[in-house]
Order: sequence, then C-alpha cells, then structure tokens
Amino acid sequence: MDPSAIPFETLLDELDFQLHDVLGVPGREEHLPLVEAAIGLATSAFAPHAATVDAHEPTFDGQRVHLPPCIAPALQAYAEAGFIAAPFPEDDGGLGLPYAVSQAMIAAFQAADPSTSAYPFLTAAAANLLRAFGTEDQKRRLMQPMLEGRFFGTMALSEPHAGSSLGDLRMRAIPQEDGTHHLVGDKMWISGGEHDLSETIVHLVLARLPDAPPGVKGISLFAVTRHHLDADGNPGARNGVELIGLNHKMGYRGTVNTALAFGASAPAVGELVGRPHEGLAAMFHMMNEARIGVGLGASMIGWAGYRTSLAYARDRRQGRHPDERDPTSPPVAILEHADVRRMLLTQKVLVEGGLALSLFCATLVDDLETGTAAEQERAKALLGVLTPIAKAWPSEQGPRANDLAIQVLGGAGYTRDHPVERHYRDNRLNPIHEGTNGVQGLDLLGRKVMRDMGAGLRLLLAEIQASATKHRTHPALEETGRALEHAAGRVAAVSGTLGMAAAQGQVRLSLANATEYLHMVGHVVIGWMWLEQAAASVGRDTPFHQGKVHAARFFTRYELPRIHRQADLLERLDDTTLTMPDGGF
Amino acid sequence: MDPSAIPFETLLDELDFQLHDVLGVPGREEHLPLVEAAIGLATSAFAPHAATVDAHEPTFDGQRVHLPPCIAPALQAYAEAGFIAAPFPEDDGGLGLPYAVSQAMIAAFQAADPSTSAYPFLTAAAANLLRAFGTEDQKRRLMQPMLEGRFFGTMALSEPHAGSSLGDLRMRAIPQEDGTHHLVGDKMWISGGEHDLSETIVHLVLARLPDAPPGVKGISLFAVTRHHLDADGNPGARNGVELIGLNHKMGYRGTVNTALAFGASAPAVGELVGRPHEGLAAMFHMMNEARIGVGLGASMIGWAGYRTSLAYARDRRQGRHPDERDPTSPPVAILEHADVRRMLLTQKVLVEGGLALSLFCATLVDDLETGTAAEQERAKALLGVLTPIAKAWPSEQGPRANDLAIQVLGGAGYTRDHPVERHYRDNRLNPIHEGTNGVQGLDLLGRKVMRDMGAGLRLLLAEIQASATKHRTHPALEETGRALEHAAGRVAAVSGTLGMAAAQGQVRLSLANATEYLHMVGHVVIGWMWLEQAAASVGRDTPFHQGKVHAARFFTRYELPRIHRQADLLERLDDTTLTMPDGGF
Repeated sequence: MDPSAIPFETLLDELDFQLHDVLGVPGREEHLPLVEAAIGLATSAFAPHAATVDAHEPTFDGQRVHLPPCIAPALQAYAEAGFIAAPFPEDDGGLGLPYAVSQAMIAAFQAADPSTSAYPFLTAAAANLLRAFGTEDQKRRLMQPMLEGRFFGTMALSEPHAGSSLGDLRMRAIPQEDGTHHLVGDKMWISGGEHDLSETIVHLVLARLPDAPPGVKGISLFAVTRHHLDADGNPGARNGVELIGLNHKMGYRGTVNTALAFGASAPAVGELVGRPHEGLAAMFHMMNEARIGVGLGASMIGWAGYRTSLAYARDRRQGRHPDERDPTSPPVAILEHADVRRMLLTQKVLVEGGLALSLFCATLVDDLETGTAAEQERAKALLGVLTPIAKAWPSEQGPRANDLAIQVLGGAGYTRDHPVERHYRDNRLNPIHEGTNGVQGLDLLGRKVMRDMGAGLRLLLAEIQASATKHRTHPALEETGRALEHAAGRVAAVSGTLGMAAAQGQVRLSLANATEYLHMVGHVVIGWMWLEQAAASVGRDTPFHQGKVHAARFFTRYELPRIHRQADLLERLDDTTLTMPDGGF
Repeated sequence: MDPSAIPFETLLDELDFQLHDVLGVPGREEHLPLVEAAIGLATSAFAPHAATVDAHEPTFDGQRVHLPPCIAPALQAYAEAGFIAAPFPEDDGGLGLPYAVSQAMIAAFQAADPSTSAYPFLTAAAANLLRAFGTEDQKRRLMQPMLEGRFFGTMALSEPHAGSSLGDLRMRAIPQEDGTHHLVGDKMWISGGEHDLSETIVHLVLARLPDAPPGVKGISLFAVTRHHLDADGNPGARNGVELIGLNHKMGYRGTVNTALAFGASAPAVGELVGRPHEGLAAMFHMMNEARIGVGLGASMIGWAGYRTSLAYARDRRQGRHPDERDPTSPPVAILEHADVRRMLLTQKVLVEGGLALSLFCATLVDDLETGTAAEQERAKALLGVLTPIAKAWPSEQGPRANDLAIQVLGGAGYTRDHPVERHYRDNRLNPIHEGTNGVQGLDLLGRKVMRDMGAGLRLLLAEIQASATKHRTHPALEETGRALEHAAGRVAAVSGTLGMAAAQGQVRLSLANATEYLHMVGHVVIGWMWLEQAAASVGRDTPFHQGKVHAARFFTRYELPRIHRQADLLERLDDTTLTMPDGGF
C-alpha cells in the first residue's frame, strides 16, 4: 500500500448510507454520480498534493503571496466541475442540489485536503450570504463570479484585539458621497485574504458606521473587493486592502491566513450589504452554515485518519495474542490486538457519528429553504441548538480520532511518511475558528437553551426520546435505546437545574461549565445518530451494516457513559473554577 | 511579555515543594542551588533556541548529519556543569545526588527544550546501564567518557519489522576469535543514532547470539561504538555502523532519529555487555528509568504550556462576564472567564500531578539503591506497578494539557508566534516511544498485577487507603480523601474480577481493556498525589499553597470521577472490541 494515500474506497458507500438510508434524502439515483464525481476529483486532484501543500506554507515576498503551484489547478478543476455552485438554485447558475448532497460532496474534499478546499468553501459561503442579503446588482457583480470560481470570497470579522468578542470590533466605515464607504482599520485571521488564485477577492467585512451604537448592535456588513471593478464588473486597479503579514500555522497550511490593513495608504472602497447595523445577523447566516461545515471538516479529517490507520492495521504484522506462548508462531496483523481494535472503533464512532450529525443538520438547512411551514419551524428550532454542537463536538472528537490514528501507527505515525501526523495538525484548527468551542458552549447554554425557555432543546430531546422508544423494541437496538432514554432524561434534568439557577440570578454559576454541558449534550446527540444508523442497518447482513450495529453498541458502552461525570458536575452547580484564587494558578 | 518565552519563575518553588515538602527528600539546602542552576542553564541555553531547533530539523547530505549549530554549545554547557553525572556516585566522577534531585534538575530541561535535552538523558541512561552491567574495563572505556559528555549513548532496540514485539528482533551477533562480536542487521527509531556532537556514540544494541533460543529469552546486549577505540580509549576509524536514513518527525526535532545498518559494508564490532541471552533484563534496567523519564518529560512539556497559557490569560483582555450587559465596559483579562479557568485548572492538575508521580517514583529508585532492606522491598513492589503508569499517564495527559494551552491562546496558539503549538507536537511522541501506552497497559495488568498475585497493586492500594484515611480527618481534605478511598476500592474490586477471569483461562477477555485499566489506576494514583500535595499545603496561607489545596479539589471533582466509566466497563469484562467483525470497520 502507498503509505501516503488515504483509502477512499468506502466513502461512497458511507455517504450513500448516511444520505439515503439514514436521512431518507430523496433522489439517490441522481445524487450518487455527483458524489462519486466529487470523490473522484478529491482523490485525483486534492489528496495527492496534500503533503506538498503542507510542506510549503504560503510566503510573502513583500509584493505577492506565493502558494504551491499545485493549488491553482486543483481549484480550477473544482470550479469547472460546477461544485462551488452545486447547492445554488439553477436560476443562479447552480445545480439546484440539496444542501445535504452538496455537503456530502464537500466531505470528500475535506478528507482529501481541507486546506486547499477552504478557498471554494469560503467562496460558496460568501456567495450564499450575498444571495440572502445582497441587492440584485451585488448578486450579478459579486455573487455570480464567485459561483463561477472567478472571484473568491473571505469573511473578515476578527481584529487584532477582538476575536471572540465581536462587539468590540473597531473597523470604521466612512460614508462617501457616491454611496460607497471607505473602510479603515485592521482585520486579523483572514483565511484566503491575499493570493492570486482568483481574478479578485471579495472580502465580507464587519465594520461600524459613524452613528453605530456600541456593541454587537452597531455592526454593519460591507463587501470590499481586492481590486476596483469596472462597469462590466472586471477587476482593475488595486483597492486599498493591504497585506500586513501572514500567520504561520501548525497545520491547514494551504489556506493562506492573513492580517489585512484597510485604508492604510489608499482608500478601501466598500459597499454596504444588507441594512445598516444589522451586519452581524447577516454574517451569522454565513457563520451558521460555516460552523456546520467546520464540524463536517473535523469529522472528515478524522475519517481520513481512521481509514489510514485501519489500512495500516490490516497490513502491519506485529506481536501475538496474550494467550499465545510460542514465540516462533507467526505475528498477527495488529488489527487483531484488542487495544488496536478499541482505537479503531473509537475513531469509527467519533468520525462517522460526527458525519451523521453534519449531514442531518444539512437536511435541516434544506428544510429551512424548501420544507413546509411545519418543517421550517422544526428545522429552525433544531438548528438553533444543534449548530453549536455540530461545530464543537466533531472539532473536539475529530482531533481525538486523529490522535488515535497516530497511536495505531506507532512511531511511523509520528513521521511524515504517513498522513496521520498532518491530519492531527490540520484538525487542531477546528476547535478554534468560527467561534471557539468555549464560545459555542456559551451560545448553546446561555443563548439557545436559556433564552427561548429551552423550546429547541425540548424538541431535540423529544425527538431523541421518540427515536429511542421506537427502536428499543428491536433486540439489537434495545441497549442503545434504553441508554439514550436515560441520557436524554439526564440532559433534561440538568438543563432545568441550570435554567432555574440562571433565572434566580446565578448567571455566572449557571454558565460556569457551559463547555462541559456542550459536550455532554453532544454525546447524547451522537448517541442518537448512532441509534439511527444502527436502526437503518439491522437485518442487513453485509459487513458494512453489521459494523454499524456493532459500532452503535460500542458508542453506547464506551462513550455515552462519559456524560454522567458531566451531568453530576452540572447538576450540583459546581463552582470550583470560579472560586480558584487567581494567585493559586 | 515575550510571546515565545516560557515563564519559568515558579519552577523552583514547585520543585522545592514537591521534593522537600511533599516527598521529604532530605538535603534541601544543598539541593536547591543545584536545581536553581539547572533552571538557570535551561532558561539561558536551551529555551531560547527551542524554536530554532524545531524549525531546522536534522538533515543528511550523504556524508554527515547536520544539526542546528545552537545544539552543540548547549550540550557542552550541560556536560561541563556536571549534570550528566549528577546522580552517579562520587567514585564515578558524579555528584552523588539523589536520583530524585537529578530528575528535578532534568525537569527544567524537559520544559525548556526536550529534544535537545534528549542527548544527555539517553547518555546518562546508557551510562547507568554500564554501571550496573558493564565490566570495570567497560566502565572505564565507555561509561566514564559518557559521564564527561565526551561520548554520547543510544539504546538500539527496535528493528523495522519489530517495535513493540522485541521477541521478534533479528539482529545477529557473530562471535569472533578475539572475543568481540560482529553485529549484522538493521535498527530503527534510534534517537541520537548519528551526529558529530560527541567524540563518538556508544550504541547499546540488542541482538541474538548464534545459539540463542527464540523470543525474548534469546536476546543479548552489546556495546557498539561509532568509531573503533584505540588502546587509550580514543576514537579512531569508523566502525561498521552506517546511517540508512533519518526519520522526519512532527516534533521533537532536535533529537536526530535514525535507521542504522550494522555490518552492511564493514564489520560492526561490538562487545558483549552482561551475560549472554540476558540482554533484555539489562536493557530494562535502562528502560524502566527511561520510562519514568518519559513521563517526567511529558508532564514538563505540559507544564511549559500551562505556564505559557496562564501568562497569556493574565495578559490578554477580551470579552466580559456573562452578567455584564454594558458593551462599553472594559474587557476583562481572559483569566476571569470560567472556561479559561477550567482549562488552566485542568492543565495544572494534569502536569503538576504527573510531576509529583515522576518525582515520587524517583525517590523509590533512590530507595532501591540506598534504602533499608524493607525500603528496597517496598520500592521494588511499588515501582513494578507504578513504572507503566508513570510512563503512560503523563504521556496521555501531558498532551491533553498542551491541547488546552493552545485553546487558551485561541488562533494565536495555532501559530508559531507562541511555543504552545510546538509543545503539542513535541509531546505527541511520548505516548509512543519507550513502549507504547498500549504496551504499558499490558505490562501493568498482564504482568505486574496478574503475575505476582497482585502484591504490588495491593501494597499500592493499601498506601493510598492509608493516606486517604489519615488525611480525610482534615476538613479541607475530607472530600478528596473519601473519593480516593472509594476509588481505590473500585480498583481493588475490578482487579479481582480481571484476575479471576484470567485465572479461569479468559486471558484475552481479561486483557481486552488493559489500556482503560492503566488509565483508571493512573487517575487514582494521581488523585493520591494531589491529596499528598494538598496535605503538605493546608494551613499555609500563601497563594501557592491555597492553589494546591484548590487544585486537589478540582482533580477530585473533574477528573477522578472519570474512573467510574472505566471501572464499569472493566467490571463486566466488556468484549465489544473483540466481537467486532473485521469487515465491519
């Protein structure tokens, strides 16, 4: 086996199973060739250069940013295949695919090379924002070239002094007589902020108008292109957006990450997108889908490690069973060792469970657009609570899977001879960007659960309970069903306790363990995803389906019980972190 | 603050507290200046070049291995300070320091730059092996120059086809008429295997004599120097040890890691160390201390990340408390946020708990050498069970701490502007080398617990119970004491169940979750370490001591309860990993 290749053989079956057997997305016959084409392109044009992209991070010579030359043709092939526009309506030049199917296609690229893939993902997200909030003219001039891959997009939120705390951002937008705005200030952590991969770059920038109220209620959204566009929309001279410097990252190196100065030595001309002071809501339209996308990427980098370490474990022969006393007996494949099996099963339940959640959320995004009124209402309520989980859970557990992949390979896994060390570095980004996992915990508990009286959470738990009650009548699903019922009950009880404390004014205390709460609920949700996968597999006697049923059992026994420590902690409103004296650290 | 500097200010207090207040090592007045000198050298000569060493991994031009030029003078200063020889008897040119004190000195170097420090650590371990098993002549010719830093040492165990499974190693040792042996075969993963940092390199090599029985009972130990030595012991022409290639690692880059060919194009002349076929026992003399050292290093890389992220959290202002509704109020230091405090407290309990265990084990090593007969017996029994834990627990939890350090810094932590991403990569080696953590689990449960009827474990649990019973009478220690009593009881019960199953022939089943067992016992042992630290701190009203008491509480509430999932799993002899169909992965 090629030690650097990711074994992609099973990916089509996995995505087909998740989309059609578990989630019941209609249109299997039309979708499968597209998903297969995505896997084909990911395998042929992205995976082979992932190591090269990693070894040659972007450089800046004072004039231009240099990227490895293999990136541009891969992205060109991606755009030419129509993949950027895939989930967009046919009227916009898209393929009109369900969002869930487009996410399944994206999954293949996340597994192959997440950092090269980030350019079209950001571009599609920016285009989607303009579709929702832009004028017809903005759609024509800015969105359309993005869907064609001629322009790439960015999201420019953070500033050097304000990352998680968007309410503190300072960039100013100064209205001009011609209706444009001049943007003034610095942005930080801008992925894809400077390069020559596209004709120009469309930065979607958060800034403050002169009359803006303080905090998050005074933020507006602007589109600022890297070049001025002429009347026909063609890029001309450079706009006043300058590269301050590159961030040198541990992984995800193909994605150039920048600090940008707006209006420092020339005006940075931008145009308002949407209404004044409502920029954050518009940006969250993009952010919410981006958050689900981050989770998907985290699971798929984990998946790449899982399949790589599985192939290694089948191939590598080492050691004997503990009851084998003959030292001259032949060594066994390390797949036979119980601890290697534990590491592989753990990876499997984490990455396939995370993938299931991402695709489930994608079907809810579809429901928001095309569902009945009742489906839209359900989707909105569930997405509210599930989005922070879909971002944070896989971005916590995907790296854990990648850690185990390294361990399966042993010393070999610590070297660049195999991709698993790169996966480990790449995936470490995901708990940080698009809102740190700590921010996701506060969003879930402080906003999504507490502020709407827990309606979204109650709906989620009711659906989990209904699924558990339905499936636990099957002998193969009974154990998981019962464990899940109990776990969902604990989440409900804990949430009630926390809500009560908050209502009584103990806001800090009730939120002190929001991250533990996030991951507790996440484990219960993923337990549900595994129950649904097992339910779609029982009675089907292929190794694939047997593996799904067995993996659900493994999740129930090894993973789900982790919530009890968290529930105990949350239930008693633990204040240990708050009462630690600052000088005691 | 210099973003790349590790804040070392508190290290002397920490090591002083652990050595003298907790462990009661006599001689505080003599030791502290030496520990302080070690911290001084680590801070001045190792820490400043850690980023450079990481950025410039070793290269091989076909003739020579090239290392960054900053490595050699740092090691020269280390040797000249007498640190390699520190724990050796004064008769051997050492300082006669307790091993525990020498480990405290080493801790500073592990925090500063573990990869540069690896050369003298390997050298001291090899010298120590020769002290125990070498002839007087070997000590004079080989050990003595190592203690002076003129020769460096390696341990050459693994081969390309045999890493964890030493019984399968194939290297041959062919006896010659002059009493020497010619070594023939390849070795893999040899740290420090080729360089020009020292006059020569002493490889301690495992190989098979022609009449060797198969498996681990047919392994002998040989010393093979990189150069032939003349009658005066000075290196002359090269011996037949050739570099096949370098391993390109994710971290720990200053330590050149090599594949070596012995006797491929010229005879590789070696000399037997110890008795024929008893090489593995001799090597384990070195390995056991190396394993404790790996755990120490893992804790100290974690410690470096902890202190770095703590300094960042005190400095960085971002966001507000969740009950602060005024967006114009000034942002707070992120140290004030509950989730940041959780991440810092978690790091603290993991790295200071691991450090406490390493130093406790080091005092047991001292007892083995200098204790009364009863002390020696106790030390031997405890070290048997504690060595795999002292290796594996910190090497699992140290990287977890480093992961949290990155998260505290957010995006900044993912860049090379701060050392925490390097710590994360460096520390990932530790669960792999010196016996993977999976191997440690089998060593603990299958060998140390089951083979001697659990005597070592019983002694360990009795000491933990006695400590818990004694201290829980103090109100500040009661919670931890009670939790620990209960936890130790669970370990005893689970161990009994597993031992019974093994005795009834269910060997594979009883060992199937050996890694979970290892980490469960590890958490209980670290709970004990925290109880002892808290007991040495109650009633002392400095922030340092208050922090220790509070951290013990945090460990009791957030960490110790993790064992119950593991104990439940082990108690019911879970077979989920064994019954997974191979095709289901």
